[in-house]
Amino acid sequence: MKVSVKVPATTANLGPGFDCLGLALPLYNEITVEEQVMPGSGIEINIIDDNETFDTLSIPKDENNIVYKAIELLYNFVGQSVSDIKITIKTNIPVTRGLGSSASVIVGGLVAANELLGKPADKAVILSIASEVEGHPDNVAPAIFGGFCISSMENDGSVSYSKIPWPSDWKLNVIIPDYELDTKIARSVLPVNISIKDAAFNIRKCAMLVDAVYRQDSESMKKCLKDKLHQPYREQLIKGFKELNEFLENKDDILGCVISGAGPTILIISKDDGFEKVQNDVKTILSDLNVNCDIRTFNIENEGTKVI
Amino acid sequence: MKVSVKVPATTANLGPGFDCLGLALPLYNEITVEEQVMPGSGIEINIIDDNETFDTLSIPKDENNIVYKAIELLYNFVGQSVSDIKITIKTNIPVTRGLGSSASVIVGGLVAANELLGKPADKAVILSIASEVEGHPDNVAPAIFGGFCISSMENDGSVSYSKIPWPSDWKLNVIIPDYELDTKIARSVLPVNISIKDAAFNIRKCAMLVDAVYRQDSESMKKCLKDKLHQPYREQLIKGFKELNEFLENKDDILGCVISGAGPTILIISKDDGFEKVQNDVKTILSDLNVNCDIRTFNIENEGTKVI
Repeated sequence: MKVSVKVPATTANLGPGFDCLGLALPLYNEITVEEQVMPGSGIEINIIDDNETFDTLSIPKDENNIVYKAIELLYNFVGQSVSDIKITIKTNIPVTRGLGSSASVIVGGLVAANELLGKPADKAVILSIASEVEGHPDNVAPAIFGGFCISSMENDGSVSYSKIPWPSDWKLNVIIPDYELDTKIARSVLPVNISIKDAAFNIRKCAMLVDAVYRQDSESMKKCLKDKLHQPYREQLIKGFKELNEFLENKDDILGCVISGAGPTILIISKDDGFEKVQNDVKTILSDLNVNCDIRTFNIENEGTKVI
Repeated sequence: MKVSVKVPATTANLGPGFDCLGLALPLYNEITVEEQVMPGSGIEINIIDDNETFDTLSIPKDENNIVYKAIELLYNFVGQSVSDIKITIKTNIPVTRGLGSSASVIVGGLVAANELLGKPADKAVILSIASEVEGHPDNVAPAIFGGFCISSMENDGSVSYSKIPWPSDWKLNVIIPDYELDTKIARSVLPVNISIKDAAFNIRKCAMLVDAVYRQDSESMKKCLKDKLHQPYREQLIKGFKELNEFLENKDDILGCVISGAGPTILIISKDDGFEKVQNDVKTILSDLNVNCDIRTFNIENEGTKVI
């Protein structure tokens, strides 16, 4: 018995929506889970990294692996214990770049294991377990369901989410630099407290952003992709972010420029061919700052996790 | 030349939406603005307070009156100056109770004066001037447009807003106590800083609230009418708020219990006849705490300011 699933990359926060907004990108990891034929074989974790997206040696290959941990929680949820299991992760999403690679493998492990077990858990349970392992649901929700999602974890561990249709002419342009940024470091630069004024700023921008997506209103969206909660503290870690923001301010058909998750990837949301018009200038700004990066333009990924 | 308008009461914040969410209630002030017949008569401000809603003597009757100030800004906007003007305010909205009485008279004065001038300003300008005088747009937007509004003031003073259809079976029950609470005092108890964790809580609750209104989803709305930004600090000033919240938690068809604006009015949002089922218990809780109050149930007011 063996199940493979593919799970999209995701970009979280989108400016004001700290830990609650996210959307899926058509860039996938493939996770295969199989029961070992030989009882007593234990845990086997293989990583196939054709694109050399990361240092596979640094990933734990035992019960400390997060995919294994997630699968164990699912088995426990249905009153079973994991014993002999083989997990194969074929990576295509760059790690520690703010593109939801950890959410992707956690979700992939859970969905594949759930299939193996005969689907005892529904998607709400998968969402809840994956969010628990990840710590927050903002990448996990779009990784499972695809599209643009709001999500919120309650005190009891349950997770609410809503998927809202994303306008088809809003493009997602990601600038993936060649350096990594550990989420722990990106979290450590955040202050413990912020001013109530800055909090109120993000609250109203995030509320207006959700409204702008519902109304597919590009002019409103332009005013919403702003943040005073995390970006001002993280921009020191993200080369070119400040310069690109200054350059892109008030450019036609550029809706906003935000940090993808905790960075270092930068997400530029454009309308129609808005990004094409500025792409050369963007490249020049980045090369002048000696930022080596891969720039890619995507449509939103709307299907989420799929068994393949 | 004389113009009268009626402007609804409003309730702002709705839990997580600090300074950006508000909705209108069918309870009206009437504001009449007329040019004085005799040149040189100056400013005349009359307050008709049949319901004895407040101490009319404490309201400035000269150029320090906020309605006059708002009208003056409008005249200045069209390059004119106000000279001889008579403003009559017929009050029906209780003041310093968190029901938008000041937004109501500011908007009323502006809309009436704009009619007198031949409508030089559109509603966006009225919204911007009224928000400038009031300091924030959350009461002003629904006072002008009616319904449930999100609003956001930009650095340049312009105000964005969106009106979202409110489910017809969501009722607005207001508990208006017989004591006043000055907004300045209610603002003074707020801390300068809050934890980033509490800010993130409000951001996700407010995002989910906007989504719940769009989807008319009562079950989701129940989880959204929560706040960690202002209510925890203001509840000490609002008799019965804590007790009512504890009592109403998890009651059928009660979507939430929040402070209306800066208080002291309490807003309970219910579905269908949800409030009727708990009304007697609510009254007992309040009378046991010696809170004298007027309890009223409304549907949302959807028309906003009207020339009458």
